[in-house]
Amino acid sequence: MPVYKAPARDTRFVLNEVLKLEQYAHLPTFANAGPEMVDTIVEECGKFASEVLAPLNQSGDQQGCVRNPDGSVTTPDGFKEAFAKYRESGWGTLASPEEWGGQGLPHVLGFVVEEFVATANHAFGMYPGLTNGAVSAILAKASPELQQKYLPKMVTNEWLGTMNLTEPHCGTDLGLIRTRAVPNADGSYAITGTKIFISAGEHDLTENIIHLVLAKTPGAPESSKGISLFIVPKVMVNDDGSLGARNAVSCGSLEHKMGIHGNATCVMNYDGATGFIVGEENKGLAAMFIMMNAARLGVGIQGLAQAEVAYQNAVKYAQERRQGRALTGPAEPQEKADTLFVHPDVRRMLMDAKAFTEAMRAFYLWGGLLVDLSHKAATEEDRALADDMISLLTPVLKGYGTDKGFDTCVNMQQVFGGHGYIEEWGMSQFVRDARIAQIYEGANGVQAMDLVGRKLALNGGRAVQAFFAEVDAACTAAKADPALASLAAGVEKANGELKAATMWFMANGMTNPNNVGAGAHHYMHIMGIVALGFMWLKMGTAASAALAAGAEDKAFYEAKLTTARYYGERFTPDAGALRRKIETGSNSVMALPVEAFATA
Amino acid sequence: MPVYKAPARDTRFVLNEVLKLEQYAHLPTFANAGPEMVDTIVEECGKFASEVLAPLNQSGDQQGCVRNPDGSVTTPDGFKEAFAKYRESGWGTLASPEEWGGQGLPHVLGFVVEEFVATANHAFGMYPGLTNGAVSAILAKASPELQQKYLPKMVTNEWLGTMNLTEPHCGTDLGLIRTRAVPNADGSYAITGTKIFISAGEHDLTENIIHLVLAKTPGAPESSKGISLFIVPKVMVNDDGSLGARNAVSCGSLEHKMGIHGNATCVMNYDGATGFIVGEENKGLAAMFIMMNAARLGVGIQGLAQAEVAYQNAVKYAQERRQGRALTGPAEPQEKADTLFVHPDVRRMLMDAKAFTEAMRAFYLWGGLLVDLSHKAATEEDRALADDMISLLTPVLKGYGTDKGFDTCVNMQQVFGGHGYIEEWGMSQFVRDARIAQIYEGANGVQAMDLVGRKLALNGGRAVQAFFAEVDAACTAAKADPALASLAAGVEKANGELKAATMWFMANGMTNPNNVGAGAHHYMHIMGIVALGFMWLKMGTAASAALAAGAEDKAFYEAKLTTARYYGERFTPDAGALRRKIETGSNSVMALPVEAFATA
Repeated sequence: MPVYKAPARDTRFVLNEVLKLEQYAHLPTFANAGPEMVDTIVEECGKFASEVLAPLNQSGDQQGCVRNPDGSVTTPDGFKEAFAKYRESGWGTLASPEEWGGQGLPHVLGFVVEEFVATANHAFGMYPGLTNGAVSAILAKASPELQQKYLPKMVTNEWLGTMNLTEPHCGTDLGLIRTRAVPNADGSYAITGTKIFISAGEHDLTENIIHLVLAKTPGAPESSKGISLFIVPKVMVNDDGSLGARNAVSCGSLEHKMGIHGNATCVMNYDGATGFIVGEENKGLAAMFIMMNAARLGVGIQGLAQAEVAYQNAVKYAQERRQGRALTGPAEPQEKADTLFVHPDVRRMLMDAKAFTEAMRAFYLWGGLLVDLSHKAATEEDRALADDMISLLTPVLKGYGTDKGFDTCVNMQQVFGGHGYIEEWGMSQFVRDARIAQIYEGANGVQAMDLVGRKLALNGGRAVQAFFAEVDAACTAAKADPALASLAAGVEKANGELKAATMWFMANGMTNPNNVGAGAHHYMHIMGIVALGFMWLKMGTAASAALAAGAEDKAFYEAKLTTARYYGERFTPDAGALRRKIETGSNSVMALPVEAFATA
Repeated sequence: MPVYKAPARDTRFVLNEVLKLEQYAHLPTFANAGPEMVDTIVEECGKFASEVLAPLNQSGDQQGCVRNPDGSVTTPDGFKEAFAKYRESGWGTLASPEEWGGQGLPHVLGFVVEEFVATANHAFGMYPGLTNGAVSAILAKASPELQQKYLPKMVTNEWLGTMNLTEPHCGTDLGLIRTRAVPNADGSYAITGTKIFISAGEHDLTENIIHLVLAKTPGAPESSKGISLFIVPKVMVNDDGSLGARNAVSCGSLEHKMGIHGNATCVMNYDGATGFIVGEENKGLAAMFIMMNAARLGVGIQGLAQAEVAYQNAVKYAQERRQGRALTGPAEPQEKADTLFVHPDVRRMLMDAKAFTEAMRAFYLWGGLLVDLSHKAATEEDRALADDMISLLTPVLKGYGTDKGFDTCVNMQQVFGGHGYIEEWGMSQFVRDARIAQIYEGANGVQAMDLVGRKLALNGGRAVQAFFAEVDAACTAAKADPALASLAAGVEKANGELKAATMWFMANGMTNPNNVGAGAHHYMHIMGIVALGFMWLKMGTAASAALAAGAEDKAFYEAKLTTARYYGERFTPDAGALRRKIETGSNSVMALPVEAFATA
């Protein structure tokens, strides 16, 4: 069975030594977020993830979920008990507001929990996974009555939340949705329609499930400007908080998927179900975007998660499996063969994974910190700066993080040779599970369009200019450190390619927006390469400082510097190739008529 | 259900207009390989593949194979009947020698059948898939008696062949095998041991299965110099050709795999089974390599196959699914949304697939032609030239072809958004099935080492120099054609990167062979990029000529020129980035101690 151990040392390093959470102790929610709290979370949540959740990952995949004849759904063996422990331990409530029963810690610490849980068991993590986002949307937009009724039990995970957008004929293009919401006399609405791909739409983990549902009221404008958002509880909630009658919403069937078998992906039927509007009519999309942005960051974390566990298992296999001899002569002549570890091509794949996962961890934790600072920083200017940055980087975290995360899983599976293809070893599951993260919460092509079509131009390009400047400053500073000079040169060059691609879009997008669309995905990847390079500069600088200060854990910091150098050598060159592709524009991309795509 | 239509027009184009098979009509086996024969094969085999095999692909995946309590294996519903038709139609015997009951046509035409069959149903194609390779090994190395006994029924696919190399503790490193072969008094051997991952090791398609098995005789040298090859029939064959007693070989279990569920991947137990040596003791690996080279070319074709069918289905979906609007304004204002086809990022993925699959088809067909010419060309020099080239290119066809083939499947799945993740649509299966091709018959890292460690240096680098020269000549010629000038420039540049990387290996490999190992995989990819670029030059030249000659099918040739240009713009830039990575050497790849790979 595959193994998983939470990356405690690495997480501590990023939080305490790179991001230095202590420096924010004066800000709301940060007072208790110092090294001691980090230690506690890393140790305890790490233990919970590897001891309770990881052992259910493979069995959950093999067993899957079952829809019973009455429409109820049974989750895989052990999920219910594991969830009860998760709830009792309060892992889902770390960053929720204290006034609603949460622990009032910064989001960046909540993100650590998301990583550990998703890495140990992706399918399990999806049950509570959307609830915090639903809470944020309700907090921001719902009436005080609705907040009072739903938040306390959602915050404590007594009830879980879901997100209902997709319908059979529409996913990305929400303007097309057909689910109707007809006002009732009492101010509620009757919701009728079919939603598909609803993660955790039905299950046996909680007594109630709170669905957040997009629907159209009578006479609403066509297009996405006519969408409203509703709370539709699975079981009606009485005014005293007790549960009432069953609402007219049910799971019609479960999807048969490539992976995440342990999660119930439901077709949800709304048959005049009672719903309560969140905010105003026709303004539902804005509320849903609060939830969606949280979800996208969570998916970026999932991109790291499967890569991390696949990497850990590949490292173990490469140490145990003996096959062939080192090119430089037998490393262990007393054995019949050397381990896979001696082979440079195996080591290349492991180093790629190491360089990606460690930087991706720093990247999402920085993202979590930015979420906190966008709300809690001391000045309006600092809050705006943080908000700019996380808005810009959300599609990169999601899109680049999951693309690279998937590729990393595939490479780690490759380390196993034929055994990687056999389900028993677990590597296939990591690949199959990781694949969904490139697709859901906005397929990565949609993320790329969000980045180039919306985020680049935000406030006159303020965010991306700030990003360029931060990266350049880090490059300039790092060049003085011989251990980081080559990385700094590589990242600076990649940042230059990113700037050039941005300029090219500005010069060529107005005349033909397809020139931007045809380069969007590559652009997102260049920004990912630069962002992770920026993380390596930050981590490398912290490692150099620790070594200079005579840190005890010398090998740890030296490995950081070597991996940083590897990143500069092996990741940054792609930025130039991607820019060259972007600059060929959209002509040959769009030139052919539909008929030309038939091969027969 | 997914669709498949054999790429008849494209195959005809490559065989008749690009490779111009007619020009070889004076050579043995080629006399009947003109456009008429091509038409017949393309039409009839295409029909068979799409009408008989494709409909069994998804059901075969869902149903899988069953090992019965007596050790027999039942293939999915319909496979047995489909195989009977395959055999009756003689699809497996096209390129087999007439003296043994084959049709005596060139291998390049047999390769067409391999493509169509693998594309329609990868798992099915694996049953007969290794038989022709086994036939080649037996033809080359076995005694006349063994040939007489086994070849007639293998050539006609009355019996099928398998390849038994891997054991639980050894895959790539065959020197470690433990299966023993003890001489019997009658000249046969008693074979004892366990082989794993044996494709089609047991099934119900034929009365007999002929296993080719690697084993060690008593006192044989350790290492791969002590390996012998044996024929081990499932059922003993009497001297009159009738079947005798059951041999002591059986299927111990079936593997649970990520994909190719329709194929029985067996653990095979040899319990003193009777085997017959092929060639001399301790010289088994050379004989097995004849089989393995054929198998590797077949796997390269599989790399194209799943990409092709995934592409065909993505094209269909992109035409039918309506979502969002063109960036340049509604393409079909009367509809509520435009099709996916209008979106540049979707089109980018489809163009990537089109540019890859069409060039990969030309590449493997050129490879098939080289196999023929290596045996049948008129002069010793021509045969040596062809042999050089196919030896050099086999790892590239296998390694680059399957890497890009898998990536293409993943991208085509992405076109489907959420539906791509649902098994019902079939895209997941294409991805899962394609994945094995990167792993089996020598994982792609092994292909890369074969390329840089063995093939580059062959005859003092004669092959790779010839390749460079052929590509350069094609670039020079194409530059004069305005429609191909930008492609020619891109390929020439990529070829320059390939030459530079080759020089870098020569300069830095002697002092430290890890410098070559750490760049091998990237090198294989550069050569793949150049090879497919070379194919686009050849195809583009043929298309230009056809247009200049006033060909009727103008749209077809114009699409070739547009796709050729796309290839130059979007594929060739990666060569430079890969070269830059190679030239960073092995230092940071190999620097870290094993302990540094732990994250916890």
